[in-house]
Amino acid sequence: MADLTQLLENEVLMAFASYTTIVLSKMMFMSTATAFYRLTRKVFANPEDCESFGKGESAKKYLRTDDKVERVRRAHLNDLENIVPFVGIGLLYSLSGPDLSTALLHFRLFVGARIYHTIAYLTPLPQPNRAMAYFVGYGVTLSMAYRLLKTRLYL
Amino acid sequence: MADLTQLLENEVLMAFASYTTIVLSKMMFMSTATAFYRLTRKVFANPEDCESFGKGESAKKYLRTDDKVERVRRAHLNDLENIVPFVGIGLLYSLSGPDLSTALLHFRLFVGARIYHTIAYLTPLPQPNRAMAYFVGYGVTLSMAYRLLKTRLYL
Amino acid sequence: MADLTQLLENEVLMAFASYTTIVLSKMMFMSTATAFYRLTRKVFANPEDCESFGKGESAKKYLRTDDKVERVRRAHLNDLENIVPFVGIGLLYSLSGPDLSTALLHFRLFVGARIYHTIAYLTPLPQPNRAMAYFVGYGVTLSMAYRLLKTRLYL
Repeated sequence: MADLTQLLENEVLMAFASYTTIVLSKMMFMSTATAFYRLTRKVFANPEDCESFGKGESAKKYLRTDDKVERVRRAHLNDLENIVPFVGIGLLYSLSGPDLSTALLHFRLFVGARIYHTIAYLTPLPQPNRAMAYFVGYGVTLSMAYRLLKTRLYL
Repeated sequence: MADLTQLLENEVLMAFASYTTIVLSKMMFMSTATAFYRLTRKVFANPEDCESFGKGESAKKYLRTDDKVERVRRAHLNDLENIVPFVGIGLLYSLSGPDLSTALLHFRLFVGARIYHTIAYLTPLPQPNRAMAYFVGYGVTLSMAYRLLKTRLYL
Repeated sequence: MADLTQLLENEVLMAFASYTTIVLSKMMFMSTATAFYRLTRKVFANPEDCESFGKGESAKKYLRTDDKVERVRRAHLNDLENIVPFVGIGLLYSLSGPDLSTALLHFRLFVGARIYHTIAYLTPLPQPNRAMAYFVGYGVTLSMAYRLLKTRLYL
C-alpha cells in the first residue's frame, strides 16, 4: 500500500500545502469581513437576518446594499476567481517535479500579491496598486500553467 | 512507475474523496435549483433565455430579478466560498497523515453543516440556524488548516 | 521518501493535469475579457478605477453597470460554479484508477463543452446552445462522481 504519510515529505508539496493553506485562510477571512460590515452597518440581504433589529415593516429598511459591503464582496469574488486556478494548477505543477527554488518563488509571489490585493481593495489604495497586485498573481498562475503544459502535455 | 491505483486505498483519502464528492454534488444541485426557479417563475438574466416565452418587447418583461432566485444564488455563492477552502485544505490535510477518526469527524461535521446550511437558507429557517451551520463548516476548515500548518509548515 | 516526480507519469493523471490546466486558463481569460469591456466601455465598479477618466463628480458617471460586462461576469461565475466540482471530483476520480480511454472521454467532453459554453454565452448564440453545453459539462462531472462513489465509497 502506498505510504501516503510520505507524500507531504516532498519539500515542494509541503511548501505548496503551507502557502495554499495561508491564502485560502485569507480568502475565508473575507467572509468574516463581510459579516462584520453587515452587522456594524445593519445591511442585510435576507429578511430573516435582520429580525433581531425589528419586526415586519421596520426590518425591511435593513434589506439594502451598502458600498463598503459590496466592496468586500467584490474583493471576495476576485479572490475566488484567482485562487481557484492557483490551487488547481499549483497542485499539479507541484506534482510535476519543479525545482524547489523556482516553486517557492511562484508560491511566495502569488500569496504576497493576493494579500496586497486585499489591502489595496479594502483600504482602498489608488490605482494601479490593485491592478498590479492582480497582474502579479495572474502571471504566476499562467507561468505555472505554461511550465506544466510544456513538460507534461497529454491530450 | 508510481502505482496510483493504490493511492485511493488509503482510508483517510478514500473518506475525503467520498465526502468531497458528496458535498460538491450538493453544490452542483444549486444550479439545478436556480434553473428550476428561473423556469417556473419565468425570471431570466439573458434575452436569449426567454425567447420561447415571447419575442422582442414582450420577452423583456422576463428580464428581471426575483427574491427566490436571488436567495438560491446567494446560497450557491456561499457554498462556493466555503467548499473551495474545504476541498483545497482538506486534500492537503488528508495527505499529511492524520488519524482516521479525527479526519472522519472533520469531514462528517463539514458535510452535515453544509447540507443543513442549504436547508436553512432555502426554507428559510429563522436565524441563528443558518449562522450556526456556517460557523461549524468554517471552524472545521480552520481546524484542518491549523493542524496542517502546525505539523508541516514550510515557508 | 516518496518519489513525487513519478506521480505525473501516470497517464490518466497527466491527461487530467493537461485538461484541467487548459480549462482553468480559459476561466482566467474571463477576467481579461471583463477588464477589456470595462476599459473600452468605461464601466467601473470602484471609484478609484475611473480616476484617470476624470476627478470627483465627473468620474461618478463611469460607476455603472453595462449589459456586456454583466454578461461576461455571469459567464465567469458559471465557469467557477462548474469547473470547481470538475477539478475536485476529477482529481479524485483520476486517482481511483479509471481506464485511460474512459477518463480521456470525460476530460475531452468537459473541456469542449465549457469552451463551447463560453462561445455560446458571449456571442450570444440562441438557446439551447448554451443550455446544451452546460448539461454536457454537468453530466460529465456527475458521471465521474458516480463512478468514484460506486468503487470507493467510504463514509
